[in-house]
Formats: sequence, structure tokens, C-alpha cells
Amino acid sequence: MKAKTRKPKAKSKGKETPKQIAKKLEGIGDGMVADIKKGKDPSFKTQLRGRSNVEFDEDRGILTLGDKETTRNFLNIGHARKFMQTTMVAAKTRDYLNQNKTASIREVYYELKHTVPNSKENTFDGQTESDAVIVDLEHSVNTIREKLNLHANPKGTLYGDITLKDKMHHNDKFNCAKLGRGGWSVMSRLEPEEIEIVSVNAKYVLVIETEAMYERLVEEQFAKKNHCILVSTGGQAARGTRRLINRLNSEKKLPVIVFTDGDPYGWYIYSVIKQGSMALAAHSQYLACPEAQYVGMTLHDVETYGLENVTERMKDGDIKRAKEMLEYPWFKNKLWQNQLKKAIREKIRIEQQALANKSLEFVATEYLPKKIKEKDFLP
Amino acid sequence: MKAKTRKPKAKSKGKETPKQIAKKLEGIGDGMVADIKKGKDPSFKTQLRGRSNVEFDEDRGILTLGDKETTRNFLNIGHARKFMQTTMVAAKTRDYLNQNKTASIREVYYELKHTVPNSKENTFDGQTESDAVIVDLEHSVNTIREKLNLHANPKGTLYGDITLKDKMHHNDKFNCAKLGRGGWSVMSRLEPEEIEIVSVNAKYVLVIETEAMYERLVEEQFAKKNHCILVSTGGQAARGTRRLINRLNSEKKLPVIVFTDGDPYGWYIYSVIKQGSMALAAHSQYLACPEAQYVGMTLHDVETYGLENVTERMKDGDIKRAKEMLEYPWFKNKLWQNQLKKAIREKIRIEQQALANKSLEFVATEYLPKKIKEKDFLP
Repeated sequence: MKAKTRKPKAKSKGKETPKQIAKKLEGIGDGMVADIKKGKDPSFKTQLRGRSNVEFDEDRGILTLGDKETTRNFLNIGHARKFMQTTMVAAKTRDYLNQNKTASIREVYYELKHTVPNSKENTFDGQTESDAVIVDLEHSVNTIREKLNLHANPKGTLYGDITLKDKMHHNDKFNCAKLGRGGWSVMSRLEPEEIEIVSVNAKYVLVIETEAMYERLVEEQFAKKNHCILVSTGGQAARGTRRLINRLNSEKKLPVIVFTDGDPYGWYIYSVIKQGSMALAAHSQYLACPEAQYVGMTLHDVETYGLENVTERMKDGDIKRAKEMLEYPWFKNKLWQNQLKKAIREKIRIEQQALANKSLEFVATEYLPKKIKEKDFLP
Repeated sequence: MKAKTRKPKAKSKGKETPKQIAKKLEGIGDGMVADIKKGKDPSFKTQLRGRSNVEFDEDRGILTLGDKETTRNFLNIGHARKFMQTTMVAAKTRDYLNQNKTASIREVYYELKHTVPNSKENTFDGQTESDAVIVDLEHSVNTIREKLNLHANPKGTLYGDITLKDKMHHNDKFNCAKLGRGGWSVMSRLEPEEIEIVSVNAKYVLVIETEAMYERLVEEQFAKKNHCILVSTGGQAARGTRRLINRLNSEKKLPVIVFTDGDPYGWYIYSVIKQGSMALAAHSQYLACPEAQYVGMTLHDVETYGLENVTERMKDGDIKRAKEMLEYPWFKNKLWQNQLKKAIREKIRIEQQALANKSLEFVATEYLPKKIKEKDFLP
């Protein structure tokens, strides 16, 4: 993967109605039928994935997929299986869109899996096969899976003075500061056609890695006192939660501040929220948040706040990940290079909850307010 | 562990106010001070844990802790470290109760961890040490950790016509059928002193293992059409979610029906919801739900519904677990023995989402309504 500075292609992705996307899917089928009638080998085009076609767009600060395309042909024995699978998933998602149904990607796999009549061949031999085809289709019709009415598992919680409306569920309107201390369970799909952000009364969004730290900040009334929205990801953020953060930033112009454990895994969570992920490089504009900033934990916090007693040893996997991250173009700045090198050198990590060593409320009354006020962030 | 039929001891656990529990904790300290003043070796009592003291109470259908006690003495070199840790956690939780603060068990660990002055000894060398002490204390003052204002991580989601009030958060009142399709994110603490179940309008509670199946049932309007409450556990149920299910059953007299993947892991999730767990055997009356029933998935569903194509191979760990479960007293009934033996023999498992092989809505319109109507349950 290389860093590139280039003008992005204007893309219409995201403006189409479900019916229009269903039409596009039918278009793929119509093209194949026309090919067959002409005696031609039916085929379809998709983008080439994998690191060789992923680029870091420095202008936009997000990962993108390059221009390389690939064509799959029905009469190519190496393509035939995937060809069949693609037409099955295309037909099925067309049905979902027309019937106003949504499905998890695991359900799609199960719904389509069967043994081909008069053979011992299964249509799909595992969800990895159907998942790959779904990504192909996203590219072929230039959309994201959520707009094909597909989704992965939900995870994440939302708290604060934000009112949402679920247009697909009796137009429920609810304010996420008024659901007790539990908060709203973020759905797997957060598209504007379904969930409207009616209003939000906050100065920024604080994204938190662990559910337990989220509970701490709720208990300390951090959101109200600091006029912010809290989003917990529960580890690596699910697509629905990434889309929510993306929309709070792009639609509502709220700055996004990320707060994770001080270790390569936490920093990678931040990186995915900010620049997007390689696997979903084609969809960064919907999922990434290039202006996000990182408040902590940093290994410098250990010294600043005297937390030497409550660090933990990094595991080998963490050190390996830190070494990889040193090479990512978007970590090629002095502050992150220092951070990563310090981690590799000292082999320690520090958890968010370790701040409790000062006092339970320290994170809410001192650590976060001070760092945020002084903009003591990593980029 | 053995099965026992005996009358339960009447326990007052759960009726005390936070101040009364704080007083009890102080009582432990006062006792120690009195011992020291008399020149005696200070000590405290707790229950013996571990399998040797866990019993299955057949009358009540729950796991309980036996009567065996153990005493820890300060002047016993093998007890001294644990003695110090216990007094530290007792003092800290007394403070939480008096200050109306709650903390995660990880925060307690971090808050109390430090190096003992003039030594290289840490107060705690890992969270397992503080967790064990917390369990000791629960026993010593005859309460559950939630009433010591402690909690583990939250997990789980609630949907349906149930209105909750959070007395610790502006008395927020909200109905969990009106939060869009996301639902309420279940807190780590669900004690009546904090969360009141204001009203619930349903015939039963359906507990669901996976978040994705929960989303399917919400989309199919299963709760409304079948007049039930949906609770997803997201795998093994967290304490807060178990407490919620326990309260819906014991306070609101709602039958509890459990729906998991058809494999030993899923059946174990059911078992913990129903009988309690060995680790928390002392608290089953707050966490277990002995009248719960199991609707599926069963391996017999595979044949009944023609799902042979969408089963998966069981892993070795699953088979090992199934063999262990054969020996548990509460699985010593014909239906479960058949189920477990079938699993061990055929080495297959079946996921909830595999029902999508019939159609997306099959689970909501046929599978669940039919099995529930005909009471086609495992005990």
C-alpha cells in the first residue's frame, strides 16, 4: 500500500433509493442475459481488493481503494463458482430491497446455502465465501452493504443529549440522555434513510473503547458537565457505530475525540475510526472520520500522572502490531512515531481504567477535561 | 459437587440499605480492632468456595453454596497477604457505599494497587487477586457485589413493552418498545434500589443468545405480535442481564424462554440462566431463573426442519463440554441426556441463524410461535 495525493473521483454512492439500487442489481443480471442471448460469455466487473489496490489518500486523510478492476467470466473454470455465488447474492439482495427486508451477512449465507441438485457441490462452503461476494457486489453497484440491506452484528452504546428518530419503527423519537444510565444500543445499520439525527446538543463526541469506562463517565455525569456525546465501541468498533460517529462528524460537524487503552490495539481502534480500514477501504467516506483526534491513553500519561505501578506488560502480538503500525503512512508523524517507538522500547501498556489508581472520578474531573481543554492530542 | 434435597436457609440478603451494608463492613473492621486490643490474632470468616462446597438444590432447582466456612487469620503467614487485601477492599467498598459511588471490579483493582511503602511488594498482583477478595467479602457480609456498589462489564440489550425507571439518573422513565430498533443497553447493575420495573406488558420473556437473531426478531415485530419481551445476551449473559431476567421472572412472574445456538456452548448459556453458575453459586437466588425453559435450537430441529445442509462440525472443545454436561445433576433427565448424547454421537451443531435457510422470517412466523404454542421445550 502506498500513500498517494490525488483528486478523488466524484462518486454518487449513497444518494440512491433502495429501488434504484435494486434496479442496478437487476442490470447486472440483464447484462448477463443479453450476453448469453448473443452467444457471448457472461461476465461482470468488480474492483480489485487487497493491499495492492489500497491507497492512503493524504488529501482526504482516509484509506481508499485504487482503480484496478477485475472481470469474472462464467466460462472460466476458475471463476465459475464465484460467478454462480455472485448471481445468487445479487438476486437475493434485490429481493431484500424490493421487500423492504434487511439481513445479517450470516443470514444471507445460511439462506443461500444448499447442495446443488444432482451434485455433491454446496453453493457456499462457509461464510467467508458469501462475505467476499458481498464485497464484490458492493463494488459492482458502487454502494455500501447497508444500502443493499445487509449488515453485520451490532455493538456499541450511545449516551447524551442527542435525539434520534427511527423511521422504520413507528417514527420512534428518543433522547439518549433520558434512557437512564444504560443508553441506547447502537444498531448495525445507521443509514439516514432509517435513522434520522433529529437534534444534537453537544460540543463534541467522545468515543470510548471499553463499556466499563463508558459506565464510569456516565456515572460522573461527564456528558452533561462537558457538553458532549458518549459513544462506547466495546473494543473494535462495529460498522453501525463507525457510521454513527462518521455521521455525527460529517452531518452535525461535531469534533470527534477518541479515548482508548494505551496500547497498539487501542491505537488501531483509533486508526480505523479515523482513516478507515484496509478491508473496507472503498467505504471510508461513509465510515471514517479523518478529523478525529486522540486524547489517550498515551505512554507519556504514565509519567505525567505517576501510573508506573499500574502498567501491564505488552504481549508479543502487541509489539508486533506496534512495529507494523510504525510503517503505516498515517502514523508517519513525529508524535505517533515517538509513541510507537516508546511502546516497542518499554514493552508496557496502560489501560483506561488504570486511571482509577488516582481516584474513581479522576478521569472525569481532571484527566479528560484538562487534556481536552489544552488540546493535548495525538493527531 | 453433589445433588442435595434440603430446606434452604432463610436469608435476609438483599433487604439491606447501602448504609446498613456499609455498617456491616465496618463491623468486620471493628471486630479486628477489638481482637488486636485484646491481644488476639484478628480474623474474619468467609464461605468455602470451589466445587467441593457447591451443591445442586433439587427443590429449588438452583446451584447453591454449602455450609463450609473458612477463617483467615492475620498472624498466619499463608493468610496475611489475603488478609491485608480483604481489609483494603472492605474499606474501599465502605467508602463507595457512603459516597454513593459505584465501581467496576477492574477499577477497584486499579484503585487499590500500589507498592507497599519500604518494600517491593504490590498490594495486588493482578485482578484475579482482588476479584477473589470481593467474592470473600460478598460472603462475609452476606450480600451480592452489586449491593457493595461493584459491578463487572455490562452487555445485553432489552426490547419490548416494558417501562423502566432509573432512580439514580433523574428518574428517567422510558419504554423499551419506543427506542427504535436498537433497544436499551442493559446496565451492569440492575438492583431494584436503582432500576425500577415500572410496568411490563407481556406474556413471557424470550432470551436470545446472539445480537443478530435479536435484530431479526425486532425487524419481524416478534415482540409485538407475540406479546413478549426480548432480551439478547450477546453470548454468555453478563450479571446485569441475568439479574434483569431473574427480576422479570421473580418480580413480574413472567415465564422465561431461552433461545440459543444448538451446541454445548448455547446449552451452557441456558444452564447458567436457569440454575446459576458454580462460580456464583452463592448468589443463584438473585441471578438464576429455575423455571426457565429451553425452546431451541435442538439437534432434533435439524431433522424436523430439514436443516441438514446448514449444520456445522462441533469442535473438540464442544464435545468435551457436552461430555461434562452429561454428568451435571440438572441435565440428568431423559430429554437433555438424549440431546447431549446425540451431539456427542453426530458431532454437529446448528446455529440460530441457520433457520434463515428456510426463509428470513421463518424463525419469527413459524419456528418460535409453533414450538412455544405447543410447549415443545427442553426442561
